[in-house]
Amino acid sequence: MDAAEQSLRQSLSEKSSSVESQGNAVRALKASRAGKPEIDAAIDLLNKLKLEKSAVEKQLQSTITSSGNGSLNREAFRQAVVNTLERRLFYIPSFKIYRGVAGLFDYGPPGCAVKSNVLSFWRQHFILEENMLEVDCPCVTPEVVLKASGHVDKFTDLMVKDEKTGTCYRADHLLKDYCTDKLEKDLTISAEKAAEFKDVLAVMEDYSPEELGAKLKEYGITAPDTKNPLSDPYPFNLMFQTSIGPSGLIPGYMRPETAQGIFVNFKDLYYYNGRKLPFAAAQIGQAFRNEISPRQGLLRVREFTLAEIEHFVDPENKSHPKFSDVSKLEFLMFPREEQMSGQSAKKLCIGEAVAKGTVNNETLGYFIGRVYLFLTRLGIDKERLRFRQHLANEMAHYAADCWDAEIESSYGWIECVGIADRSAYDLRAHSEKSGVALVAEEKYAEPKELEKLVINPVKKELGLAFKGNQKNVVESLEAMNEKEAMEMKASLESKGEVEFYVCTLGKNVIIKKNMVSISKEKKKEHQRVFTPSVIEPSFGIGRIIYCLYEHCFSTRPSKAGDEQLNVFRFPPLVAPIKCTVFPLVQNQQFEEATKVISKELTSVGISHKIDITGTSIGKRYARTDELGVPFAITVDSDTSVTIRERDSKDQVRVSLEEAASVVSSVAEGKMTWQDVWARFPHHSSAAADE
Amino acid sequence: MDAAEQSLRQSLSEKSSSVESQGNAVRALKASRAGKPEIDAAIDLLNKLKLEKSAVEKQLQSTITSSGNGSLNREAFRQAVVNTLERRLFYIPSFKIYRGVAGLFDYGPPGCAVKSNVLSFWRQHFILEENMLEVDCPCVTPEVVLKASGHVDKFTDLMVKDEKTGTCYRADHLLKDYCTDKLEKDLTISAEKAAEFKDVLAVMEDYSPEELGAKLKEYGITAPDTKNPLSDPYPFNLMFQTSIGPSGLIPGYMRPETAQGIFVNFKDLYYYNGRKLPFAAAQIGQAFRNEISPRQGLLRVREFTLAEIEHFVDPENKSHPKFSDVSKLEFLMFPREEQMSGQSAKKLCIGEAVAKGTVNNETLGYFIGRVYLFLTRLGIDKERLRFRQHLANEMAHYAADCWDAEIESSYGWIECVGIADRSAYDLRAHSEKSGVALVAEEKYAEPKELEKLVINPVKKELGLAFKGNQKNVVESLEAMNEKEAMEMKASLESKGEVEFYVCTLGKNVIIKKNMVSISKEKKKEHQRVFTPSVIEPSFGIGRIIYCLYEHCFSTRPSKAGDEQLNVFRFPPLVAPIKCTVFPLVQNQQFEEATKVISKELTSVGISHKIDITGTSIGKRYARTDELGVPFAITVDSDTSVTIRERDSKDQVRVSLEEAASVVSSVAEGKMTWQDVWARFPHHSSAAADE
Repeated sequence: MDAAEQSLRQSLSEKSSSVESQGNAVRALKASRAGKPEIDAAIDLLNKLKLEKSAVEKQLQSTITSSGNGSLNREAFRQAVVNTLERRLFYIPSFKIYRGVAGLFDYGPPGCAVKSNVLSFWRQHFILEENMLEVDCPCVTPEVVLKASGHVDKFTDLMVKDEKTGTCYRADHLLKDYCTDKLEKDLTISAEKAAEFKDVLAVMEDYSPEELGAKLKEYGITAPDTKNPLSDPYPFNLMFQTSIGPSGLIPGYMRPETAQGIFVNFKDLYYYNGRKLPFAAAQIGQAFRNEISPRQGLLRVREFTLAEIEHFVDPENKSHPKFSDVSKLEFLMFPREEQMSGQSAKKLCIGEAVAKGTVNNETLGYFIGRVYLFLTRLGIDKERLRFRQHLANEMAHYAADCWDAEIESSYGWIECVGIADRSAYDLRAHSEKSGVALVAEEKYAEPKELEKLVINPVKKELGLAFKGNQKNVVESLEAMNEKEAMEMKASLESKGEVEFYVCTLGKNVIIKKNMVSISKEKKKEHQRVFTPSVIEPSFGIGRIIYCLYEHCFSTRPSKAGDEQLNVFRFPPLVAPIKCTVFPLVQNQQFEEATKVISKELTSVGISHKIDITGTSIGKRYARTDELGVPFAITVDSDTSVTIRERDSKDQVRVSLEEAASVVSSVAEGKMTWQDVWARFPHHSSAAADE
Repeated sequence: MDAAEQSLRQSLSEKSSSVESQGNAVRALKASRAGKPEIDAAIDLLNKLKLEKSAVEKQLQSTITSSGNGSLNREAFRQAVVNTLERRLFYIPSFKIYRGVAGLFDYGPPGCAVKSNVLSFWRQHFILEENMLEVDCPCVTPEVVLKASGHVDKFTDLMVKDEKTGTCYRADHLLKDYCTDKLEKDLTISAEKAAEFKDVLAVMEDYSPEELGAKLKEYGITAPDTKNPLSDPYPFNLMFQTSIGPSGLIPGYMRPETAQGIFVNFKDLYYYNGRKLPFAAAQIGQAFRNEISPRQGLLRVREFTLAEIEHFVDPENKSHPKFSDVSKLEFLMFPREEQMSGQSAKKLCIGEAVAKGTVNNETLGYFIGRVYLFLTRLGIDKERLRFRQHLANEMAHYAADCWDAEIESSYGWIECVGIADRSAYDLRAHSEKSGVALVAEEKYAEPKELEKLVINPVKKELGLAFKGNQKNVVESLEAMNEKEAMEMKASLESKGEVEFYVCTLGKNVIIKKNMVSISKEKKKEHQRVFTPSVIEPSFGIGRIIYCLYEHCFSTRPSKAGDEQLNVFRFPPLVAPIKCTVFPLVQNQQFEEATKVISKELTSVGISHKIDITGTSIGKRYARTDELGVPFAITVDSDTSVTIRERDSKDQVRVSLEEAASVVSSVAEGKMTWQDVWARFPHHSSAAADE
């Protein structure tokens, strides 16, 4: 990469970041109900930044093209990675011989091995090191569970249908594509119109189905493939539906996440843990999402592997005993405030971020730190990993705080791990729906005297006053919190009656003094019963693996300089195969030596592959580099062998007996390649080698 | 167990085996269309054996009851196992707080750990040691794939519905329960009627829906729960159905097996393997089966983990290069012939079984041997494991040979692994449906001159003669095999015309000499193109794990003798936790030592649990035994600790520094407990200890 390109890339990265920050700022302004002038100003700034970014992009593109040094732009880079991945069967579009199904992919042999390594490390890093309780629940889930969790009602995208062919589209995608296209390509539109499109782009996420439909109509948007008219937008549930048992009477879904299986088992797990908090449960498994029109290759798929942790904690004490283990870590964080004020992500120390309240609590901070360690040990580039805090309007109303681990890829910054403090929402929802109390207790050392709010609606009086609506009024009265109740009590005592809004009736009623008694009573309590809060780190394993592929991919010229060779620089931990063994030529002597090494590698648990094809050693090295195999043993004598390290291409000579144990030590991280390099004689490869 | 009981159990085991063999013999006779007298004689023998078996069972039951030594019969034994498993969260009925769903179970923490250990060992034993190509395909599968495999049309059970409530039942279960009940409990039935019921039981598997329906009507069988009338039986497809994408236009199913994902990828995998045969691909993953009415707890479930291998091989050479590694193994085998002649399973050497042709080929024999090693290393009792060959009428028409690894449990002999030579069926089916040739080539060293059959239908003449049917006739002519074609050629030459059955028309037509030319031409061939055969070992992981629980479960009296304590005698390989660490009392000194040991255990990758509860060491041992933890370290000083082995309850004293490495060596099989016992001073537990 030459200096000009480097500087342009730097500038582009800054611009991208500014555009994104400003975009967030605009959304934040909308959410905060700022006045129209502020929003307009912000939108203008955003637009200006976008133009600048676009100019730099064009400049960069032309630099790359003119310099002709083979550097790749994002698209071309992605294409090179994806080609290599598909050609070497890291993944395969599923059911390819039947022309495939969008959004479904198979892992081929090296992909499977990478996935299995990532999951083993996940199990080691989280479940074993933290003593988590692992569970494994079915994918098939009865409707009642997902009704309680909210998925049946709310796990939807808005969809429109081509009225003639029935082809379906995501409504927001069509509107977004239309506005972006107009802004970018139509030079005839007026400033006023441009402002309108920008406004639409900024607020469309909050449109109701009706508003979205009206916009599609207003702009005359038709089906992109056929130009046929479109239906009105309607919510489409993203769960795969099925039915359990033969009668068709138990509706079910393929789970959209693994978390619910943990929540419904809370009671058993709490007892298993000796009724102590905090504790964490974890689950690795398949989840399903029937995307309307999958885009972005391996990043947005219809079936994927999730690894989820539900850490249950006393809402009054979210400290973490091991927080000091991670508190010194520094990495890129992108707090809400920085996003809203148009700044970029910056390096923060997680200990300070918790101390300053940027991160809500120690447990959340602890998991952010652990996730950072997990991802970087896998081989994710720490400069292209950031933790972004959700803006207020991105979070569910019940969430206390939420941070996404985002990894930069050729598709932009991708959410790969969500780390959310979901408060008591999920356990409460299942308690209510199932009637089984999902709670924890804290026994007091000594009984405590506590004041408790007591609300007693007088049903007889309420019945006389409100007839059929009595039940709604009673329930609303009982649902008052302490502040509301005490205000009502004061008003009733001073004025004798009070206006009271009953939300289930959608109107105000008049409550009189004789209709309700409100008091505070003192009670001796021996224990506190509460619904635990849950902190949920949720890992999209496939997304992490795809980003890892991009971060580990590189090219280097062949020795002859006539072609670019692909290399996956996987750390040994995730490399699909740790070692290849090449007999230099095919003879019985080398074959025997190869067998000895292979047997020893198997006995020390090092996955390896023997390549006895007759092609040159250089070609065989290239083949193994493309699979990301970190070490290659070449058998060129019956007493000693060479070991080659993939990234440096350095080789050492080691005795036949020691070869397997050296590779095993360095593959398992007990030794570094530098140690090996220092200890063994160096071997300079012959000209023919590479 | 006293001598009388032991001898009765021995006798019962023999009788059970005879009854089963004779049952198979009866089925075999039916399938071979033997005459009625032979079948009747066989049924009488079967009945006699059943009566004898029942008599021994009663005698055994009364011996157990009268001896009062706490031995458990099958049902009680199962209940004890299941109670322990549920109480210690090895498994949990799924969605329990919503009253569960039949046939769906969660694995709790220790169950998950056992499963994860079993799968890791499977991956090591099969995929890594055999260099198999692992793939990982989605569960969601489009209909076209399962149409080709035959599942859409044939993966069914016959079902009847309660006509009033809609409750569904498996039709064969109802008929079977009725006949068995009559035979066992109704003393008034005539000998003739009894013979009829026996006959029905023997042949009902081959009933058509109509025949089954007629029998249900004839016997007046009604819905067991309500006595309401039943619908006619109709086939119910056991796949969970869903629909892919938003339009509802791509019907899909949750896969009933993982194998199809491998078959559709054959071409890519063959290329990945350098176009060489044999090679094996493997997949571990969830599979689904929407059972009509799940019975048998963990053995018949609606969602389960399968581990499947598809070993592709040249049909003309099914030898296996590593067969000699297993050929000396001896274990219980139950060949077809022994089943049909009423003998029992017997110990055979797998090498001899292949040599004698009892097992069809070396590759099948190799996998049988490898499965034996896999299961016994997990802890399956080799005396309660047998390999049973499928009878001719049990196998699919295309299968060359098939053996099930059956494990004896309280439910009887359970099929846990199927090992089938499926010939070229699956690859051919997908080739035909997809139009993509799933074939392998063998390049000849020198071109071979081969005679090839050439059939040329003369379309003009055929068109004149058959008009609209011409296409059917042409296709039928082209589809003739060599024998048929040469016969037709001879007939046409001698008689000038010949009758020819066109199956797609369902009738004979007259083919004249001028309508087709048939010849044999010599051609030089450079390679042979063929569809590989596939040998498929398919493992039901959940069933293996359940049987393992039963085989490892035992009870022993507590030291005081006042209660029976449960012990899971898991080998360290599968034990959910390898080691527990107990500080004898709670003080800072012991706590520090515990931390040191825990850290070291983590660093050598030994899963462990620290139990700091204040209960007696004996209670803590009992708790850990019930989870099947093989080793316990008790911290009773700050310089040395004791290590206790679960099964012998023996304890040795080891220095604090060595403790973790000793446990790790013995847990990983690098050292036996005998070695440890010989090397370290023995520690005799104080009276309070247990």
